[in-house]
Amino acid sequence: MAPPPRRHYLDHASTTPLRPEAAAALAGWAQSAATPDGVGDPGRVHEEGRRARGALELAREEVAALLSTPASRVVFTSGGTEAVNAAVASAAADRPGAPVVAAGVEHSSVLEAARRVAPVARLEVDRLGRVELGHLADLLGATPPPALVNCQWGNHEVGTLQPVADVVALCRERGVPVHVDACSAAGHVVVDAAEVGADFLSVSAHKLGGPPGIGALVVRRGARLRPLLVGGAEERARRAGAENVPGAVGFGAAAAALSRPGALEAERAAAAAAVGRLVEGACALDGVTLVGDPDTAGRLPHIACFHVDGVQSEGVLLGLDRAGVAVHSGSSCSSETLEPSPVLAAMGADPDRSLRVSPGWTTTDDDLEAFLEALPRVLAGLRALGAAASAG
Amino acid sequence: MAPPPRRHYLDHASTTPLRPEAAAALAGWAQSAATPDGVGDPGRVHEEGRRARGALELAREEVAALLSTPASRVVFTSGGTEAVNAAVASAAADRPGAPVVAAGVEHSSVLEAARRVAPVARLEVDRLGRVELGHLADLLGATPPPALVNCQWGNHEVGTLQPVADVVALCRERGVPVHVDACSAAGHVVVDAAEVGADFLSVSAHKLGGPPGIGALVVRRGARLRPLLVGGAEERARRAGAENVPGAVGFGAAAAALSRPGALEAERAAAAAAVGRLVEGACALDGVTLVGDPDTAGRLPHIACFHVDGVQSEGVLLGLDRAGVAVHSGSSCSSETLEPSPVLAAMGADPDRSLRVSPGWTTTDDDLEAFLEALPRVLAGLRALGAAASAG
Repeated sequence: MAPPPRRHYLDHASTTPLRPEAAAALAGWAQSAATPDGVGDPGRVHEEGRRARGALELAREEVAALLSTPASRVVFTSGGTEAVNAAVASAAADRPGAPVVAAGVEHSSVLEAARRVAPVARLEVDRLGRVELGHLADLLGATPPPALVNCQWGNHEVGTLQPVADVVALCRERGVPVHVDACSAAGHVVVDAAEVGADFLSVSAHKLGGPPGIGALVVRRGARLRPLLVGGAEERARRAGAENVPGAVGFGAAAAALSRPGALEAERAAAAAAVGRLVEGACALDGVTLVGDPDTAGRLPHIACFHVDGVQSEGVLLGLDRAGVAVHSGSSCSSETLEPSPVLAAMGADPDRSLRVSPGWTTTDDDLEAFLEALPRVLAGLRALGAAASAG
Repeated sequence: MAPPPRRHYLDHASTTPLRPEAAAALAGWAQSAATPDGVGDPGRVHEEGRRARGALELAREEVAALLSTPASRVVFTSGGTEAVNAAVASAAADRPGAPVVAAGVEHSSVLEAARRVAPVARLEVDRLGRVELGHLADLLGATPPPALVNCQWGNHEVGTLQPVADVVALCRERGVPVHVDACSAAGHVVVDAAEVGADFLSVSAHKLGGPPGIGALVVRRGARLRPLLVGGAEERARRAGAENVPGAVGFGAAAAALSRPGALEAERAAAAAAVGRLVEGACALDGVTLVGDPDTAGRLPHIACFHVDGVQSEGVLLGLDRAGVAVHSGSSCSSETLEPSPVLAAMGADPDRSLRVSPGWTTTDDDLEAFLEALPRVLAGLRALGAAASAG
């Protein structure tokens, strides 16, 4: 039997491998935590508690530095989804009955969190998935004004960057709070929370090389966050529950690695070059086209989404996986969600013909070539099958 | 300068050191996750995703086995607080306007989660902190009937065990859902979720030797959980958000260690013996008495709460900490919460005179003796100070 093919992981936008710095921090925490006095509740006054508090606050400083915000503004959460849910629920509770604005390209956590607590005003997007600022101005002028405007930094499926600064400026003029979902963007492009000035900004650790199970919500000074989880005064009474110290320590280490001078820019450039190679190679194939902004300056550096004519994504994913290549798709088959991607549907694209390829910090030229070598074979095989089925 | 004293950690009920099995699992995950194909989103169809899914589901089986419940009933959460918040919010949403029953000795997460979503019907407790079943029967007969009855398995401050089976039986008769907060009990006494048959049962990993940042809600077959976090179909559409695979793996390893034949019983017996020694020694001192059930069969094995006459807890905690001994108190000074313990207040005890001592799996006789040696010195010092202040 042939050995299994070498793996080529090109699904970094789903989750990216743990950075060595984060792995070392997590393993170090685990080793220390298994000693008799190696853990403590950060809320306790004894030495063990103070040490845990120190580790937690160092991690908070590291995450804050990556996002250019004071540490006091950073609320650790269990991940991006919790951060999003907390921001949306808090803002909606501040203005009961007022609509929450969200484009169809927002992450499902934004859309579902909004739908649960308020009427949703759907912000229009163009064919590239970019929000229409004129429509936003209309929505901001409605009575009552929105309780919250959501604007993602960059799209998780096609990479489209949003005009976040313009959105925040428009909302500020009208006194409407803004939540920026930076989960897919943070760690891949510069996310300066202080400069953008959103009321809420959510990030996720595992999308930038930290562990899953931790994220953060940056709450602007003066903005109020009603806690989503209650029952304790942790996180300055903004999020109850025992703090995930190992998660925070891993998140902090990943953030610190990305904050080293030049580190983020080097990764951005490498990802952009890798995506450039993928786009060039894939779009040379028959029936493969890029979805989203053709201008690389308008996209997150590490995400390319393709439309693949005449074959179902499911078969492509499975064929590539057998060839050792891990990618993703907006089709319902590609994950445990039951519905095809609303993002692609909102852009007028076909989720069941989509393929998302996402390189990251571990990606080598070999990974890119493996994808570009396997894709035409897989497509040819599926099309031959389809033709045989039609003929039969 | 003298070296700092050896530490004696007797605050296991706040958080307990990571078990070696959990530390190894977490460190192993971190090492593997830092390789190019070492992580995956458990919701993806590719090999990396399937491997992550496998690790997650193995962990779920391990946690389920400790709690004697099918794995499909276990919903991973970010901890006990989230599990409690989810259960309370879900039940209250099912019967809008109906009261939620909770005793004053419940954890603040139960009380605050209830207060946020429903009128709270306060279940009376006796001087030992045990719920009054007669009063529960009255509350169950009210119109409208309660949306939910909360009943902790064992108290987190004084250890009092509740008549959980009786509570569940009474609620069943009336068709009222029950949530059992087993966060302090699981891993310390046998918690058989199937036998107790509560609609919801919440547990926390870091209180039994797993990492912080993960817990679980056991949802009875037939009971419905409305997700607290929305935005994805993770956890069988019961909890959205990227799964905390490292947390789950650590939780599972700790649960598996406790599920080994005789392991839990051996720890229970050792904790009970340690607490017996602490109670005997401490209560021999002037002005120190046990708070809660004097019958050890009525208490969690690892928790002893003392009333200390004539001195503020704050000074005792600090004095003991300087002597190398970490303990806790229900006083407001002892943690970042701003209020003294409502648990002790509900029992008619004085939080500012309380001291909680909690041994665990790392505790040695030396730790117990260090506490018993330091306590009289600390108390004598504080009382002398107090007398001098009065005389001065």
